[in-house]
Amino acid sequence: MKVFISGFGTVGQGVMELITMKSIEMSDYVDEPVQIVGVMDSKSYILKEDGLCALCVLGRKKTKGRCGEDLREGKEGKDILDMVDFDVLIECTPTNIDDGGEGLKNIEYALSKGKDVITVNKGPLALKFKELMDIADKNGCIFRYEGSVGGAMPIINLCKEGLAGQKIRSILGIFNGTCNFILSRMDSGMPFEQALKEAQQLGYAEADPTYDIKGIDSACKVTILANSVFGRNVTIKDVSINGVDTITQDAIALAKDQGMVIRLIGEVSEDKLEVSPRLIPEGHPLSIKGTLNTAVVQTDFAGPITVSGRGAGRNETASAIFSDLIYIMRKKQ
Amino acid sequence: MKVFISGFGTVGQGVMELITMKSIEMSDYVDEPVQIVGVMDSKSYILKEDGLCALCVLGRKKTKGRCGEDLREGKEGKDILDMVDFDVLIECTPTNIDDGGEGLKNIEYALSKGKDVITVNKGPLALKFKELMDIADKNGCIFRYEGSVGGAMPIINLCKEGLAGQKIRSILGIFNGTCNFILSRMDSGMPFEQALKEAQQLGYAEADPTYDIKGIDSACKVTILANSVFGRNVTIKDVSINGVDTITQDAIALAKDQGMVIRLIGEVSEDKLEVSPRLIPEGHPLSIKGTLNTAVVQTDFAGPITVSGRGAGRNETASAIFSDLIYIMRKKQ
Repeated sequence: MKVFISGFGTVGQGVMELITMKSIEMSDYVDEPVQIVGVMDSKSYILKEDGLCALCVLGRKKTKGRCGEDLREGKEGKDILDMVDFDVLIECTPTNIDDGGEGLKNIEYALSKGKDVITVNKGPLALKFKELMDIADKNGCIFRYEGSVGGAMPIINLCKEGLAGQKIRSILGIFNGTCNFILSRMDSGMPFEQALKEAQQLGYAEADPTYDIKGIDSACKVTILANSVFGRNVTIKDVSINGVDTITQDAIALAKDQGMVIRLIGEVSEDKLEVSPRLIPEGHPLSIKGTLNTAVVQTDFAGPITVSGRGAGRNETASAIFSDLIYIMRKKQ
Repeated sequence: MKVFISGFGTVGQGVMELITMKSIEMSDYVDEPVQIVGVMDSKSYILKEDGLCALCVLGRKKTKGRCGEDLREGKEGKDILDMVDFDVLIECTPTNIDDGGEGLKNIEYALSKGKDVITVNKGPLALKFKELMDIADKNGCIFRYEGSVGGAMPIINLCKEGLAGQKIRSILGIFNGTCNFILSRMDSGMPFEQALKEAQQLGYAEADPTYDIKGIDSACKVTILANSVFGRNVTIKDVSINGVDTITQDAIALAKDQGMVIRLIGEVSEDKLEVSPRLIPEGHPLSIKGTLNTAVVQTDFAGPITVSGRGAGRNETASAIFSDLIYIMRKKQ
């Protein structure tokens, strides 16, 4: 199994580490070892047909800020993907929800060449889900994206495989740990601006927190669930979005008086597609505090199923990618 | 896909209902329809090579208390299983943890004849897990048992498939809704005997509640997780078991003073196998109230994953069986 990693930030590096550390355990699953034959970041690339030295690539990234000695010099992703033979593309470039960015191009190109793809990049999935799935189907490729929603919290494959045969009526969830951290701090009386600043200091929020606090990140996830779990054909433009940046201390205090908290909830069903702050009774699974993600899946026969887990983080997201990789390996055995 | 249902109590009937009601949706998954070709209960049996009329069988059970016109008259399960050709045995006879009962014999016989088996019967799994898995492997059969732990709460297949590649360090959970209901009522000041009586009146506890309140039901589930998720080779005899029947109002009040509740927790890891009442901080995922089941799965890279769902009930257990049936159908496609 030959793997190419595109995008070598936190998640890409985490995946390389995890694959390397788990390679001994992986022998439980397959006869053929996993080889990482290519890595590219925005500046450079490195290829090796019979498997890269992970320590060398990770070390170079750390010391020189790029994965490879060869600079891209204007080369597009597809030019580099053409330079080495691989089976699975793991796409970890940053989310771009304007036009999908290089991630979208990489995924389209790999699928059209008959390669399996795993991604956690929400942009391509929130903009072109149906198109990408069609290319995958046409070319007999497996296309997986468990880590794109909820990080380590199992949700997409759980709904599609673990709950197979269930009619899923709705999914309501907390899909953005940054907003939930901010709202949890505001529960304790902290103003929004200060809570945001603390989230940034702790590394939960980006320097530009727009995607998180405006509800756009949650809306991407709701879009992905609508397409993958409910078989709808929607993009992020179809989501009704309200963020957390307009919530006042007064609103939180008022909620508290009624035994409620305010949480940023994504809701998806056959006919709903919404991200908005909602009043949640204290003690309800969706009243959870901190950076965890949580989802309540309403099913026709199994009742409500609640899952929660870490929604972000290097190892957590890498572990979701890894579960998709194992799925592909088992399928190809 | 030809299915035989052995055991036709609440769960067996629920499975027949669910398969019938879902048969239109099932066409999404397979070309070949599911046919229930045989049903047996303790008194009778009914067979039809080209598919039974579900309404007739369910109706007869309701009005006459047995599934078929033909009485067993001393026939063993295997004699009846031999009378019709089938692909999958769904084993739903009552749990017997003394010797596994007829359920164990049915499962052994079906696997040895090369049939796939789905069961929710905890007895055979808690007593002879390794032996049954060996027979399944030897005969190339699929053997699934998702509903045996946690009912509709996804746990076994989640750990083995959804969290594939993760090293699971431990699972701590509430695996018996009856005990949790009793403990939740005791939190509000109700004495044990009265809480048990209420559980019985509401249909949560059996007339003979021994398996539940002595922790034996939870111990079965812990055993199944140890064998299936941790690859251990243990039986229920290896579990250290304490139930809820010795918990006093004083103990609960004392816990409450410290911001804690008492919950019956099953714990399983590489070297632990225990069911015991434990002090749990209020607000912790395992402090949950009511009849839900909950499990916290500690992983090496994905951190803690929490799941919860209805641990028992006709539709809930049937839905877990149904997800296993769909797994088998997809595998055989």
